[in-house]
This record gives sequence, structure tokens and C-alpha cells, in this order.
Amino acid sequence: MTTVDTTAPTSSRTKSAPTTPTRTPSLDDAPRVDVPALETVLLGRWADVRRQARALAAREDLQKIEGQPWGEHRERVLGQLHTLVAEGAVHRAFPKRLGGEENHGGNIAGFEELVVADPSLQIKAGVQWGLFGSAVLHLGTDAHQDAWLPGIMDMTVPGAFAMTETGHGSDVASIATTATYDPTTEEFDLHTPFRAAWKDYLGNAALHGKAAVVFAQLVTGGVNHGVHAFYVPIRNDEDAFLPGIGGEDDGHKGGLNGIDNGRLHFTHVRVPRFNLLDRYGAVTADGSYSSPIASPGRRFFTMLGTLVQGRVSLDGASVAASKVALQIAVTYANQRRQFGTGTGEEEVVMDYQRHQRRLITRIARTYAGSFAHEELLARFDDVFSGAHDTDEDRQDLETLAAALKALSTWNALDTIQESREACGGAGFLSANRFTGLRADLDVYATFEGDNNVLLQLVAKRLLTDYANDFRGIDFGAMARYAVGQAADRTFSRSGLRQAVQFFSDRGDQRLAVNALREEGAQRALLTGRVEDMVAEVAQHLRAARKLPAEKAASVFNSHQNELIEAARAHGELLQWEAFTTALASIEDEGTRTVLTWVRDLFGLTLIEDNLGWYLMHGRISMQRARTLSGYVNRLLARLRPHAQDLVDAFGYEQAHLRAAISSGAEAHRQDEARAYQRQQRANGDAPVDEKVLYARESPKRGA
Amino acid sequence: MTTVDTTAPTSSRTKSAPTTPTRTPSLDDAPRVDVPALETVLLGRWADVRRQARALAAREDLQKIEGQPWGEHRERVLGQLHTLVAEGAVHRAFPKRLGGEENHGGNIAGFEELVVADPSLQIKAGVQWGLFGSAVLHLGTDAHQDAWLPGIMDMTVPGAFAMTETGHGSDVASIATTATYDPTTEEFDLHTPFRAAWKDYLGNAALHGKAAVVFAQLVTGGVNHGVHAFYVPIRNDEDAFLPGIGGEDDGHKGGLNGIDNGRLHFTHVRVPRFNLLDRYGAVTADGSYSSPIASPGRRFFTMLGTLVQGRVSLDGASVAASKVALQIAVTYANQRRQFGTGTGEEEVVMDYQRHQRRLITRIARTYAGSFAHEELLARFDDVFSGAHDTDEDRQDLETLAAALKALSTWNALDTIQESREACGGAGFLSANRFTGLRADLDVYATFEGDNNVLLQLVAKRLLTDYANDFRGIDFGAMARYAVGQAADRTFSRSGLRQAVQFFSDRGDQRLAVNALREEGAQRALLTGRVEDMVAEVAQHLRAARKLPAEKAASVFNSHQNELIEAARAHGELLQWEAFTTALASIEDEGTRTVLTWVRDLFGLTLIEDNLGWYLMHGRISMQRARTLSGYVNRLLARLRPHAQDLVDAFGYEQAHLRAAISSGAEAHRQDEARAYQRQQRANGDAPVDEKVLYARESPKRGA
Repeated sequence: MTTVDTTAPTSSRTKSAPTTPTRTPSLDDAPRVDVPALETVLLGRWADVRRQARALAAREDLQKIEGQPWGEHRERVLGQLHTLVAEGAVHRAFPKRLGGEENHGGNIAGFEELVVADPSLQIKAGVQWGLFGSAVLHLGTDAHQDAWLPGIMDMTVPGAFAMTETGHGSDVASIATTATYDPTTEEFDLHTPFRAAWKDYLGNAALHGKAAVVFAQLVTGGVNHGVHAFYVPIRNDEDAFLPGIGGEDDGHKGGLNGIDNGRLHFTHVRVPRFNLLDRYGAVTADGSYSSPIASPGRRFFTMLGTLVQGRVSLDGASVAASKVALQIAVTYANQRRQFGTGTGEEEVVMDYQRHQRRLITRIARTYAGSFAHEELLARFDDVFSGAHDTDEDRQDLETLAAALKALSTWNALDTIQESREACGGAGFLSANRFTGLRADLDVYATFEGDNNVLLQLVAKRLLTDYANDFRGIDFGAMARYAVGQAADRTFSRSGLRQAVQFFSDRGDQRLAVNALREEGAQRALLTGRVEDMVAEVAQHLRAARKLPAEKAASVFNSHQNELIEAARAHGELLQWEAFTTALASIEDEGTRTVLTWVRDLFGLTLIEDNLGWYLMHGRISMQRARTLSGYVNRLLARLRPHAQDLVDAFGYEQAHLRAAISSGAEAHRQDEARAYQRQQRANGDAPVDEKVLYARESPKRGA
Repeated sequence: MTTVDTTAPTSSRTKSAPTTPTRTPSLDDAPRVDVPALETVLLGRWADVRRQARALAAREDLQKIEGQPWGEHRERVLGQLHTLVAEGAVHRAFPKRLGGEENHGGNIAGFEELVVADPSLQIKAGVQWGLFGSAVLHLGTDAHQDAWLPGIMDMTVPGAFAMTETGHGSDVASIATTATYDPTTEEFDLHTPFRAAWKDYLGNAALHGKAAVVFAQLVTGGVNHGVHAFYVPIRNDEDAFLPGIGGEDDGHKGGLNGIDNGRLHFTHVRVPRFNLLDRYGAVTADGSYSSPIASPGRRFFTMLGTLVQGRVSLDGASVAASKVALQIAVTYANQRRQFGTGTGEEEVVMDYQRHQRRLITRIARTYAGSFAHEELLARFDDVFSGAHDTDEDRQDLETLAAALKALSTWNALDTIQESREACGGAGFLSANRFTGLRADLDVYATFEGDNNVLLQLVAKRLLTDYANDFRGIDFGAMARYAVGQAADRTFSRSGLRQAVQFFSDRGDQRLAVNALREEGAQRALLTGRVEDMVAEVAQHLRAARKLPAEKAASVFNSHQNELIEAARAHGELLQWEAFTTALASIEDEGTRTVLTWVRDLFGLTLIEDNLGWYLMHGRISMQRARTLSGYVNRLLARLRPHAQDLVDAFGYEQAHLRAAISSGAEAHRQDEARAYQRQQRANGDAPVDEKVLYARESPKRGA
């Protein structure tokens, strides 16, 4: 009974629950999950890179020490970045001529796994190579790459990505730092005109950055050509700011305290003309501006679009963190017992219906997020490898990244928190991982694009796809970012698959019980909702087109909430589609059956969450609606015996989970307690319970 | 324009927004909120105590230093407890003969305000005086109080409240520590039989505790009389554990790191017979047990019931923390501008519909929570002052405390998080308070009773009230705690007010637009939902009564989720009722009008959140349902000009908010930026925008 099965070394199960069986014992001829095979499916196209990155993440010297003073934590993570260089773990995306591999998808896959070692490590690495390095890579020419990438790649030049300002976050186009060209010296003069234009929240800015890619309004010959990027040295060898440069430490943060975020400002700092990263906009010696992209708006979004990888990797890291949390919480829930059944034996917590609701629905969401991320990563690789790199491909990629990043970062916070609460007080100890992970991932919801702004961008795309005549309409206000894109681009369908025939829900009561579990029915309901929501808003907005700008903006604003909800529904549909697509690739029948239930659970809880909408719009009948929650409960009960397999297939080992409560300690304690009580009863040492005594003496006295 | 209005010293508004008007300027003859009057209403019955406590919380030496190493933080908070003693701030509940005031409601009101200084301070004070001290006060006799309260009150004896064990949290009745009476020495022998029985998560246990109230199974003459409390010295004057006592530090936590939580275990530790806190169960010298409460079950719940104040104060502290978060976020949202309207001026963030949805709905929930807490506090004071102290009063109090604590602790986490995200990257800096508050309050959701377990307790009460024959039925499993209560008590109506006549929703379409805003309609819908949900589950469970215990438990489990949802709906109804009751006490007409909108917003969003249920159960018509979201949006727009007033009425000053972004700094930055841009335009220094240039040169080229 206590034998450890050593044949499945990649599974956490055998290590986490050595002494107690964690599954409902008799599955009889019920389907079983082939855990190693499912793990391989989840590892996806870049499985080898992920395995390498996980091996690194299992190293103690790359892991977070919870409670470490933040000053020390910053130094530790700096050192870890040097370790990543030494291990050759971070150069996959860079040009082969500079020692890279030009493997864009694999690069992200590797990066995002670092989150399980320490999110600060993931993000500081992301700042150095994914933002600072990528800006030089994608916005600079070969000459820029040759000049600066070697130092960036080997960390001799840690750098900041100086885009956001205190006064402007999501609205990058409105940043106020200027770079004014001076033809007499052939230099750009970088300048911060006021406090709101200080660069802010920049990793590597407070302490470690030697240089920065600074985004500023490029002015030459009295004309502002919009936001461009400049390579700017900021500190000397003694770590002092160079002349004209100043800054501040952002101080302690809610998480990610291994990163030295800070502020920078520039007082007429001069850099050579060469330092303009001029792939998309160049200035000649005499100050003439030229660009391969005539439209300033389109140029701006093209430049920003090259940096989409930040959102892609946040999506992946959020999915990874959700997996870690669920693997810990489910392992514990399968060992922990609480409240007796009256028969002496206490109940395994995972057997409680409420607990199943809390954890298994989130397992389903995490599977959906995982499969959707794999699709996003493939799309990303297609674009950046050049395999499929049309304007339309890039726009599709950006829309998909915006939708999925918003959903998965919020999902991670929700999942980690529910996992922590499901483990009670133990979940609050840093030794059990949840609180640290949650604190670190908190900011993912607003960085690389505030989730609400990202969803609005997705919504604008949906509107434009819905009707061509929404293109180019400026509804003002926060819509400007989204509209700006729309105005400059040829948009295609946003990946919204139209259900060929709508599922007719009315009239046929025989369908009531079974129809909802059919793939086609789920698709029709989920798709129909997105289409209806978009059409409804579009109708209102169309009427506003003839209004004066300010009134039109007001109409747009009065539908902002619906628009964002439509975008969320769209993102959820994309996750559901990705999950459904993935099912087809699963060869083992038992695994496919169980995962189909998981997909159904995901789809049906999406419908359950919006049941009011489905009823109001006549998409689902009262009768069927009333069967839904019961069916979800039955699915939960059916999946309960597979819960451990489903989280074990995430494939994280104890060195990744690093939670005292997933180590098997709880099962050991339970066994010890029960052995003690058995022994006491056998010896006749156990005191008589007063209740029992009373019951004996006076049966009427009551318990 | 920059004059600071010094006539309203209790309002944060003038301090937080000195340079920019924060309200939509023209309200014309629209109602206005009388902020100081509303603030007084919110301060409630113990306004003076709250003001004193807020004055203390404004002292820098009592405040949290974000990012302070946790070892130092623990020492700081220990010192702060001595300060509270010196200030006479923590003795209100204790007997007058020992220097207290026997003011139970005021005591809690004062305690909970400390959360705005540092939640660690609030909770460590709660451990010392609210748990450790209260156990001696309520479970001990006068002799015990005289012996130990002075040292507890003046902090010469910091102590732990040793109830929870590693193996048993919410299920206190099953703790495994034993206290076996030895008549030969007239001592109790306290013993920890196995690792799972270690006391765990105890504040003051890791470092500072000199003594502890230890809960253990009292065994005398071979009979186990259930859980009783013992006063046990644990450390000597050199801070070393006394013989037989051992322990461990719980280490770093997700928050509340100013408290030294730890574990304790006992190896045949002997204490005199006197150390049994024997108000509810005594042992004579020869070992005979007696108790004023014959039923062991009822005795257990009576003893636990005396400690309800923990839940009461968590409810209040959660409401206070929500207020602080909203006051910061709304102040910032009224100053921050982001994204242009195309006319050059950027939009104030609070004007975005989505932002209103995010923040104003939570203002409404926080008002509801605040008024409900005031009722709870009055009920608490009634019971503990002896004014209304029947068994039924105590049971009502416990049910109310369980429901409200669950709702408000979750609400605080949700509100703080939404506030933090609404402030973007700035919200993530510790300097802006949200992340620290959220991390500290996280554990409130599971301590003093896991929220899900508490709601189940409420649900059981609802069932028992619904039908007398549910009393005493043991459905097993997690229900045992709740059932245990039911079995031993005479339950009355749980405060669920039956709507005299149900609001008839069908048929009358003229009502569609207006009816939902009527108080009676909201009450009927909210009440009807609770009643229907309870009745529905009861019907299912009744059928299970004749099944064998194990099967009955399984039926119960298959409705656990519904039961908990019913309890949540009940709690929300109680909040709505408290809000409605409070409206009547508001004298100023404008204030009452605005607050009535806020109450409507609270009620209608509760209905909106459960719209599927209302439709499925025919409680609301399709037509009316379709008007709901539009009506909520109109309410939001109507409340938007009052948002600042509504949060200013919470009454916290900058010394309580302590957020850089609520200090007026943002308004100052915005003003500076706009002044610069105006100046540039006036001087003709502004570069021409390339877009404008192109438009001039070639009107067809597009933007």
C-alpha cells in the first residue's frame, strides 16, 4: 500500500501521495486517463524546449525564496539572469548570425515555463530579452542588431524598455517624451517636458539598467512623426546616471519584487542619429523623415505589433501558474479529510460537491486555456518565422493574443485564489505557494495592456468584421486605440466561426436532457451569443454615426460594457474551439472520453454563467435551462475520480510545486492519526464519549 | 481654483483633489449628498469610539511599512500592541472591576478601525484581547478573570488562542489534543497524540506568547466530555518553551506578516485543576464532571458561541478596508485622464461606463455591507450586554455573523482587487495601498470559519426554519457542524422577512420599466429567491430522510452547492434589508434620494447576477429582464456625479488612505501637462502632427 510507483517519473502523483490512495478506488470499466500520453499532448509542439525549461525551473538556485527581503530578491534575480545566459536558455529568438536560433515559438514556450521558478525571473528575463532585446531586434536594422544585441544577449548590458509614462499607460500614442532631431550635430535630443512624461514602472530602471530603448515622439523639421524607439545609454560603469538622465525607484510592489522597477526622465539628452531604431521610420543627416509605411497610424501599430510576444508569453505563463495551483490544491483535496460521516471515518475533501464545483470547473478552464495558448503560440511562430506573415496574419495574431491574454491572466488570479481558499489556513502559508504566485501574477492583468482595454480592442475588431462600415469611425474616448487600428488596416474575419445552422432549441423537449452535451449544440450557443451581442451593439452604434463626434462618443460609451462582455464571450468561444480541436488529436480512447467531459464542463459552465442572456434571447428553453445545473453536477461527479489524473497530466514535479501540502505530508499525518486511533480502540484505551455514555444511560436524553 | 476648502476637515476630498474639480460641474437642481451628514450616519452608534480609533490609526507609529522585512514587522506590531494598552484603546469589553468598560459593541467598533493602520495590528490585537482574553472572560469564572485578565489586558502576558490543529480547522469538535484529569495530583495532563493534533496557525505562538488558552478534549474518569479550554503557560521569562511544550514557526505568509503565527504541541504537560476555564464544564477534585448544560453538543456550541466576536469584527474590518480601497480608486479615477476624445482633451477615467460598472456597483455593495454590519454590531451588543440575551438571540446573532462575515470578506477581496486594477500599474505599487491590503485580508475568507462552511451553517438554519422536521436529521459529512447546532437548539425564524404578497411579475407590461426600482418589488424578488431555493432543496432532502445514513449523506452532498448559494442569497437579502432600513434614518432629502439610487443599484445588480434563476422560475418576465441592464446603466450614469461624495462620506483622511494616487498628485501632474501644452500652442512651439500635415497636403491620403 505504501509502495511508490517509480515507473512514472514525470508524474507528481506518486511523489505527492505516497501513502494513501487518492482516487475513488473502483472505476471498473469506466474510462481512464493515460496520464503520460496526456502530459505529452499538453506539452505541445515545443515539448523539448518546455522540458528543458522545466529542468531549469526545478533548480533551487533559480527559485524564489518567499519572504526574502526585496533588496536581496532583486540581486538574486539579476544573478539568475546571468545563469540563464550561461545555460543558453534565452537566445532562441535571436538571429543565427549572432548565436541565436530564430526559433520564435520555442523561445516563448521556454520563457513562460520560468514562471514556475519565480515570476520575477520570468518577467525580468522578459524585460531584458523579450522587450528591450526584441525592440532592437524588430525595430532596428542589422546594423543596430550587430551593435547592441550581443551585449543584450549576454547581459553585459541590462536594459529597460522605456515606453509607459506616469501619465500614459494603455494610450501609448499619447506619450509626451520628445526626441527632436538636430541636423547641426546629427543628434536626437531626448526630453521629458513635465512630470507626467516620466517613464514609469520600467524593469531594470531602478538599479540594473545600463541602457534603455526609449519611446518618444520623433520631431524633425518641426513635424511630429509619432512614437519611435531610441537606444539610449543611461548609466555609466559605476552605475551612476549619465548626464541629463534622472530617475526614481518605484519601491516595493504587490509582487514581482525581484525586479527593480523604476522611473526615468531625460533633460535634453543627446544620442547620435544612429540610435533611432529606424526600420519603420528613418531620418537622414539633413533631417528628412521617411518610412516604408506612409500612414502614421498604421506605422505606429505595426511597430507596436512587433512586440506582441509580451502578451503571448503572459498568456502562457498564466496558464502554467494555474496548472501549478490546481495540481497542489487537488493533490491536497485528495488527501485532506474533514468532518465525519458519523461512521467514524472522515470525508475526503475532494468528495464534497462544493469542492468539486470550485476546483474541477477551474481544471476545465485551465485545459481550455492551455489548448488555446498552444494555438496562439503556433500562430505567433507562423508570423515571426515568416511562414504566414501577411498583414492579416499579424492582425489575427494580435486580436487572438489580446483576447487570450485578458482571459488567462484573470483566470490565473481566480484559480490561484480559489485553490488557496480550498486549502484553508494552510493555503495562506507561503510554504504552500499560492499567495506568492497570486501576488506576483496580479499585475499580469494590467500590464502589456490593461485587460479591459485589450477586450475593447477585440470588440472593435468584432464590430469591424461584423460590418465593413464600422471601419474608420471614430467614436472617440477610449475607443480611439481600437479605432486607430481599424482605420489603418484591412481587417478580415476575426476567427469567429459561424455556426452553419443554428441549433434550434425550442419545441423539442426530447432533446432537453441530452442536447446540451453535443458539441454542435455548445458551439451554436456560444457562437450565437457572440454574434447576437455584436449585432445588437452594432445596431445601436450605427444609429450614432450621423451624430456629432461628441454625441457619438457618448453613445459608444453607453455600450462600452456590453462591448467588452461581447469580447470576453468571443475569447471564451476561441478557447472552447481550441479545446474541441485538441480533442481530435488525442489518440487514447479513455483519455479522449474524459477530456470530452472536461470540454463539456467548460462549455456548459460558460452557458450556465450567462444563462440569463440565453433565456432572454430565446436561445435556450426554460425546460432545458432547468436541466443544466443538474447536468453540470453530474459531470462533476463523473469527473471527480479523474481529478488527480487531470492535474498530474500538467506534469509538474515536486520541485516545481514546492508546496508542503502537495508533498504527501498530509496523507502521512492522516495515516498516523488513524493508526493511533485504531490502536487506541484495539487496546481499549480510548475514553468513552460522553454522548455515547448518556445515550447508554438514558436513551431519551439525546445527543 | 487651487484654494483648499478647510471647512470640511473630516472629508478627504479637499485634500485629495486640490487642483482639479472632480465632479461633473453642473448638477443644477439634481439632488446633492450632504457628505458630513452621511459620514455621521455611516459612523453609526459608536461614532465616538470610531473617531478615537481613526485618530489612532492616523498615527504613523501604528501604521504598516510596506516591504518591511517580516521579522522587523513582527517586532513593530508587538510594540504597537503596547502602545494600544498605553492609549487605553483595547479594554472596552473587559469587566469594570478590572478597569474595563463592559462596552461590547464599542469595543468591536474600535478594534475593526485598526485595520486601516495595519491589518496585522488589528488581528494581533484581536488574538490577544479578542480571542485569548475573551476566552478567559467568557469561558472562565471571576476567579479566572481576576487571576489572568490583568496580565492579558496590560500585555505582560501575550497569549495564543490554541484551538485549530493542523488536522482540524473548521471541524473544531474533532480536535485531538487531550486534557486528562489526574485526581492524584489534581492536575490536567495536556497531550498531543500525533502530528495532525499540533496546534497550528496561532498568532503569538511562534515568538511572543507567554501563555495560551488551549482547547482539548476533556477526559476524566475514562469519559471524554468534549472540547474545553485550559489556560496554559507556555514560555518562561527567557522566552524558552516550558518543559513538555514545543513548537514551530509557521514562517512567512501571504499577508499579516506582522503576526508571529506558529504551531504548538504538548507532551504530557501538567496544569492545575484551576486552569480549566470551567464556566460551562467543571471537574471536582475527585474528578467528577459537571456542567450547567446537560447536552454535550449544546455545551460545545454555547462555548464556541461566546467567541462570535471574531466573526463580527472581521465583517467590520472588511467593510472598512473596502471603503479605503474605493475612496482611493474613485479619487484617482476622478483625476486621471486617459485616451483623447479627438478634441484634444483627454477623458476622465471615471466617465467611462465600464469604469462606473466596476467601481460604483462596488460602492453600492460596500454601503450595503456597512449598514448590515452596523445591525450586526447592535445585535452583538444586545447579546453581550445582556440586554437581549436569550438562546434565540444568540442563535440569530451567530447566523447573522456567519452570513455577513462570509459575504463581506469576499467582497473586500473583490473590491480591493477591482480597485487595484482600475488604477493600472500604479495600483500595483505598494505606495498605493491596494496590494498590501488585499494580501493581508486574503486569509479573512477562511479564518474564524471558512466562508463556505459558514454559509453551509446558515443554509442549515434556513432549512430548519423552513420545516421543523429538518431538526435533528444528520445528513452526515460536512453538514455535521450545522446539524449539530440544529439538534441542540430551539431555532426560530432566521430573520428572513416574508414578503406579505409576492410581486406579480407576469402580465402587466406597463410595470416593465418602472417596477424594478420599487422597494417592494426588489424585496419580493430577493426574498422569493431565498424561499424558493430553500424549499427546492428541502423537497429533495426530505425524500432522503428515510434512506440509510450513508445514502442520505450522499443526497445531501448532491445539493451542497445549491444550499450554499441559497445561504449567500439570504445574506445578500439581509444586506439589502439593512440598507433599506438605514434609508429611513437619513434626514437630508438629497442624500436620501441618492442613497436610494445606490440601494436600487445594489438590489438590481443582485437580480442581474442571478437573472437566469429569476427567468427560469418565472419570477421575472422576459420583457422586464431585457430592460434590466439598461436600467442599471442609467442608474450608474445618474450616480456618477455623486461617486466622489459617496466615497468621501466614508470619512477616511489621507493619513488613512496613504496612497500616492489619492493625494492629489495625479491632478497636479495633469494640470502641469495641460498647462505646458497650452503654453506650447500659445507660443507656436508645438510641432505639427504628421497626420495633420498629410491631411493638409493631401486630403485623400488619410490619417
